[in-house]
Amino acid sequence: MNNFVFYSPTEFVFGRDTEMQVGALARKQDARKVMIVYGGGSVVRSGLLQRVKTSLQEAGVLYCEMGGVQPNPIDTKVYEGIEFCRREQADLMLAIGGGSVIDTAKAIAAGVPYEGDFWDFYVGKAKVKKALNVAVILTIPAAGSEGSGNSVITKVDTLQKLSLRVPELLRPVFSIMNPELTYTLPPFQTACGIADMMVHIMERYFTNTQQVEISDRLCEATLMAVIKEAYRVKQNPDDYDARANIMWCGTIAHNGTCGVGCEEDWASHFLEHEVSALYNVTHGAGLAVIVPAWMTFMAEHHPKKIAQFAIRVFNVPQSEDLEETALAGVSRLKHFFRYMGLPVNFKELGIVNPDIDRLTDSLHRNKGEFVGNYMKLTKKDSKEIYRLAL
Amino acid sequence: MNNFVFYSPTEFVFGRDTEMQVGALARKQDARKVMIVYGGGSVVRSGLLQRVKTSLQEAGVLYCEMGGVQPNPIDTKVYEGIEFCRREQADLMLAIGGGSVIDTAKAIAAGVPYEGDFWDFYVGKAKVKKALNVAVILTIPAAGSEGSGNSVITKVDTLQKLSLRVPELLRPVFSIMNPELTYTLPPFQTACGIADMMVHIMERYFTNTQQVEISDRLCEATLMAVIKEAYRVKQNPDDYDARANIMWCGTIAHNGTCGVGCEEDWASHFLEHEVSALYNVTHGAGLAVIVPAWMTFMAEHHPKKIAQFAIRVFNVPQSEDLEETALAGVSRLKHFFRYMGLPVNFKELGIVNPDIDRLTDSLHRNKGEFVGNYMKLTKKDSKEIYRLAL
Repeated sequence: MNNFVFYSPTEFVFGRDTEMQVGALARKQDARKVMIVYGGGSVVRSGLLQRVKTSLQEAGVLYCEMGGVQPNPIDTKVYEGIEFCRREQADLMLAIGGGSVIDTAKAIAAGVPYEGDFWDFYVGKAKVKKALNVAVILTIPAAGSEGSGNSVITKVDTLQKLSLRVPELLRPVFSIMNPELTYTLPPFQTACGIADMMVHIMERYFTNTQQVEISDRLCEATLMAVIKEAYRVKQNPDDYDARANIMWCGTIAHNGTCGVGCEEDWASHFLEHEVSALYNVTHGAGLAVIVPAWMTFMAEHHPKKIAQFAIRVFNVPQSEDLEETALAGVSRLKHFFRYMGLPVNFKELGIVNPDIDRLTDSLHRNKGEFVGNYMKLTKKDSKEIYRLAL
Repeated sequence: MNNFVFYSPTEFVFGRDTEMQVGALARKQDARKVMIVYGGGSVVRSGLLQRVKTSLQEAGVLYCEMGGVQPNPIDTKVYEGIEFCRREQADLMLAIGGGSVIDTAKAIAAGVPYEGDFWDFYVGKAKVKKALNVAVILTIPAAGSEGSGNSVITKVDTLQKLSLRVPELLRPVFSIMNPELTYTLPPFQTACGIADMMVHIMERYFTNTQQVEISDRLCEATLMAVIKEAYRVKQNPDDYDARANIMWCGTIAHNGTCGVGCEEDWASHFLEHEVSALYNVTHGAGLAVIVPAWMTFMAEHHPKKIAQFAIRVFNVPQSEDLEETALAGVSRLKHFFRYMGLPVNFKELGIVNPDIDRLTDSLHRNKGEFVGNYMKLTKKDSKEIYRLAL
């Protein structure tokens, strides 16, 4: 087992009606003025925004608001937010939404006290030394951003989709999670979120670090729970317990609970980031296409952990032939994704003729000669994985 | 799923040589003077205490020290510590040891800024409103106190063994966990720790709260990992990975990771506290006696979750007869405890003729008419469970 630090200081307030606690929680953080960040109109239409404002008012906390954050969030919205926040002198960023909104709020939180261009942080030209506090009311379980110090932003000009990781400053101070708020998520968005959280676990699970039984078991446990509850939520989108299980799985998939003591992989995420940056597809749908391709490649080149996944998570019978066992697992994963309404190849994703050369070149330009850790992918390997996704 | 708050702000610094970071970590907490608390001489003999002092010195942090904390820690040592800490004007309690030392440090941390008798907190006469920071270097994986806000102290005069829970103030600010420090733990102590952490999980797992699949799976995952690694550490006490897995399992067994959204039980712990308070046995050994008796009782009266435990954790074949399945699980658990060198009945615990009436009376005097939640135990039930442990 590798040395590690586990530090998850976010206060997760989970359950029915918990959004009504936002005023009290903001006060506990000594917030004077909250900047509310959200995406489309559903937060307004559902009445959630108004409930939040009422709770803040009752707690005597001021607020201002910025809507309009788009999926695959972009730098221009961050610049707008930084300027707005400075003008309003807000001191706590409150994201209401999913990963895109939270990641935008984090970027603004880091950008406000910084004199230079916030994009410096994403390209590694500067380090975040100070940031406003970030808080969350989660409405889309997927990205795990409510419990992580990560933020992914796309630069519109160059279509670079880059991630920043500053756990000590960008982890939300509190995250409010009411599963009822997710009842209205359309089936496709629900499925994309499920794919995203599953792959967060798999990026940690597919490791060469030996004998970290507790991490293997926790990853498998979370994957099994997600899959079981996904079937239930597909049948009944208003099933509170199914929504609640999925919502919490999305958090622990990405807050450090899974994968302690292991070198992580992340190749699938990086392969997908190129796809969603170039074709603006939903990240979770992109992952549902890329991950089976990546696993199929690994079944041939490095099947050990893929086979363990097949046996323990998908009940594939044990066999002498690791590759065969691994491929049976991939097949069951694809079957599950399809049942959830997710694409499992480029065509189903709506990209009939992807520019694989461009994707590969951009990937290795952004991430270097080798990508991932479970197996260090060369350009040739990456290209083959993209091809396996056709 | 019930509403819950998950908040685990402790910074866990895990791995080889991590004790050398104690000076830097204490500084990060703005500590001026650390009060080191420890138990017997092993911390001195192993050189650990000296390494800690060197690290503190190098970081420019002052220290004072109090050794001599005993297993099943007592109030008199807490009074001594409070007085000593006030005299020395220490501002960070650093526990080096296991649950007894940590719990003593927590009691001192709460007692120092309080004008009244610290025991008020344990009997519910007063609430902790302020406490010194507590930090930990863990040498005995068992109690999970390194990640919890709990403290259990025994009053010498009355033999009352009572617990206090103040997560917002008594959770350690950091916990250093080097599995190498546990190589020298004798097999019996290792086994007692394993029993303790397993039962921490089981107190959460044995719940009537329905459909919290993620909690069930995480509990089962952690139990399976502990059992597997326990066999390995029994064969080879210097197996780093086995020690590391067990050490981390002990923490997540008790920091809130397991059991979210469920009503917890804790009857077995309360039944055992009476035994160790009266007969001064090791808590983990007491649990190895009480838990199989509690489960045997439940196999008859409320077998559902005991049967699930048997099937998922101990691979007992599924059967129509829930009681039979449950009892097969109890039998495998006893077999495992025995293999680890633990007692599984009062006689093996060295108590030939336990005073069951006194244990029962004291239990219900301390805890009320009903004890536990999985099934609310009456005096008659408690007596029967003690009898099943004969």
